[in-house]
Amino acid sequence: MPKISSKGKNMPESPIRKLVPYAEQAKKNGTKVYHLNIGQPDIKTPEVALNAVKNADIKVLEYARSEGSETYREKLTSYYKKHNISVSAQDIIVTTGGSEALLFTLGSICDAGDEVIIPEPFYANYNGFSTANGIKVIPIISSINDDFALPPIEDFEKLITPKTKAILICNPGNPTGYLYSEEEINQLKTLVLKHDIFLISDEVYREFVYDGVKHNSIMTVEGLENNAVIIDSVSKRYSMCGARIGCIVSKNKDLIQTTLKFAQARLSPPTYALIASEAALETTDTYFIEVNEEYLKRRNTLIQELKKIPNVKVSVPKGAFYCIVELPVKDADHFAQWMLEKFEDKGETVMVAPASGFYSTPGSGKNQIRIAYVLNRESLVRAVELIGLALKKYQA
Amino acid sequence: MPKISSKGKNMPESPIRKLVPYAEQAKKNGTKVYHLNIGQPDIKTPEVALNAVKNADIKVLEYARSEGSETYREKLTSYYKKHNISVSAQDIIVTTGGSEALLFTLGSICDAGDEVIIPEPFYANYNGFSTANGIKVIPIISSINDDFALPPIEDFEKLITPKTKAILICNPGNPTGYLYSEEEINQLKTLVLKHDIFLISDEVYREFVYDGVKHNSIMTVEGLENNAVIIDSVSKRYSMCGARIGCIVSKNKDLIQTTLKFAQARLSPPTYALIASEAALETTDTYFIEVNEEYLKRRNTLIQELKKIPNVKVSVPKGAFYCIVELPVKDADHFAQWMLEKFEDKGETVMVAPASGFYSTPGSGKNQIRIAYVLNRESLVRAVELIGLALKKYQA
Repeated sequence: MPKISSKGKNMPESPIRKLVPYAEQAKKNGTKVYHLNIGQPDIKTPEVALNAVKNADIKVLEYARSEGSETYREKLTSYYKKHNISVSAQDIIVTTGGSEALLFTLGSICDAGDEVIIPEPFYANYNGFSTANGIKVIPIISSINDDFALPPIEDFEKLITPKTKAILICNPGNPTGYLYSEEEINQLKTLVLKHDIFLISDEVYREFVYDGVKHNSIMTVEGLENNAVIIDSVSKRYSMCGARIGCIVSKNKDLIQTTLKFAQARLSPPTYALIASEAALETTDTYFIEVNEEYLKRRNTLIQELKKIPNVKVSVPKGAFYCIVELPVKDADHFAQWMLEKFEDKGETVMVAPASGFYSTPGSGKNQIRIAYVLNRESLVRAVELIGLALKKYQA
Repeated sequence: MPKISSKGKNMPESPIRKLVPYAEQAKKNGTKVYHLNIGQPDIKTPEVALNAVKNADIKVLEYARSEGSETYREKLTSYYKKHNISVSAQDIIVTTGGSEALLFTLGSICDAGDEVIIPEPFYANYNGFSTANGIKVIPIISSINDDFALPPIEDFEKLITPKTKAILICNPGNPTGYLYSEEEINQLKTLVLKHDIFLISDEVYREFVYDGVKHNSIMTVEGLENNAVIIDSVSKRYSMCGARIGCIVSKNKDLIQTTLKFAQARLSPPTYALIASEAALETTDTYFIEVNEEYLKRRNTLIQELKKIPNVKVSVPKGAFYCIVELPVKDADHFAQWMLEKFEDKGETVMVAPASGFYSTPGSGKNQIRIAYVLNRESLVRAVELIGLALKKYQA
């Protein structure tokens, strides 16, 4: 029997998906499962995007350019301009989702054994992309007690070694919903310039900010041009997660040239999705206002309902559509699986993502879960009620 | 200025695409360029696939399952059955093109520094995927003088070290058009079983075989179940290169489990393309018969025209739609670029892929080009005429 590689063995299981078999079994048993585990919004995709694909006159479904078409990249520059990000088409490489953007960026920056510092909890798949590239994730804990603010910059500096090639942040944060302040971004700027390393910012939730807080993109910071790399995606912005279109944005020409070689090796991003993504740029501001209002209401509903459960701690997210919730349990992995396997109330249960998979320090986040508030308010109320009922039964 | 990784620097430029800027300049100068450089067929995509996307009733463009939907994978098993390949849905992981299938497979099998033996010339991007994974390609030369037959199996065995994790073949071959015989496949079987390594077979051109020669899939060979991995794709089969749907097929459960983790990290293959690919399975046999007849005529035209040029050597391809052509020049890279930069006849020129990029042994294939016969016969005749005229002028 030929052997699997150590890398393959070390690839983490997705914490978002590892409970899927239990959820499927629950459904087979007739139980309704509320999905708070995955960032798959129920928000409608803009019709302008869907119609562009419907009406596309395709005879041969051809390869797209490896870096994305000139027209799409040109139009993207106007999108970024609206967000005060000034870039040219040459600064953009279109990728197959934000996932590929991160994979190509890490491959271009890091060799096997190199290190990337990431404030944790972080988007779980950063672990997967790092493992796939043989990169060591160096976590730095941000705490629910500080609302997941940037850890002291001195703590970052202590972790920097000759192998450190980048600091990676997610802003607004998945899974925390945290939004970095201008001051925090400036602290990171000083640090990466001092040590001549990259600052990678995953900004796929750029549009989802609440309470009048401003989003600070690293690309608007003067002097950071050679160090800043944005990871972006249409998935959440236009509720088209299944498209699989993202991009890398950077003014560092070496980085763009290198990621282009990775892009050429895989030939082309998906052509249908490119058509949808280019058309989606025409989405009206009204769409975003309505969607944001809806998410804000959902967030408020979620927080309000969570606070009704005794001994539950939650940090109010300022962006994205996730939050980390601390539960009065020892092992949230076990509790989450138990809710699917052993619990139901009136034929209903809930699926959440145990937060341990969003940490890389062993043992961290064991009593936390991540909730994606991607369901309508009525469902959210019921889902949180179910968590409360489950906790009572679980503790008894 | 932060630094690019060694891996990034070592990523090869695509030999298929590196001349693109010269072709674009030629077009800007008003020259018509015949593209023989890339496997982008002009064959129509089956309407059943295109219509499925047009008629899909999508409100939210959601993630697909990481491994592809149950229904698509089930239907794929029927497709394989028609080709005498008996597999279940659990043996299939759907990927974003054959590219990703190979990337996940190599990552699951090899650690950095491990080796994969590949008969050369080989599909150029094998170099890219290997570099991205830190894997060493160990080439074994097949010669145009033997019509690119499998090199003696003793020569393979000499190259096997403790670091050898797999042998990778492309069958039918890109760029050679070679089809491996049953005997050759059996020799490989004996070898991989003896050394307990994987045999990866890129079979994306399965349907494109000519002259009544039979395609021998490694998945039809008894006793090879744990060692055989197929790389597959809808790109060429249905002339939908832009879809970006492929798959990994293997009965080795460890391999499938491991590639699934890579698939989960990138969340989902592209949803639109999945709809098209599932519908494409209903493509009629007539479509394939007509397409094959067309390619056969093109191949015959191409070979016939090439033989008119003095001192040109070509091996008649038995499958796929490429062939390697040996030219009476020292440096085909230079000649190919020269055709775009300095040559035109009646305002027309040709773009070919220099073959050096399809070899990994330095200096190999320097006097060869790869031609993709993806144009209609009239264009092929003119394109080859242009090569002949260009050679005359180049040699003078």
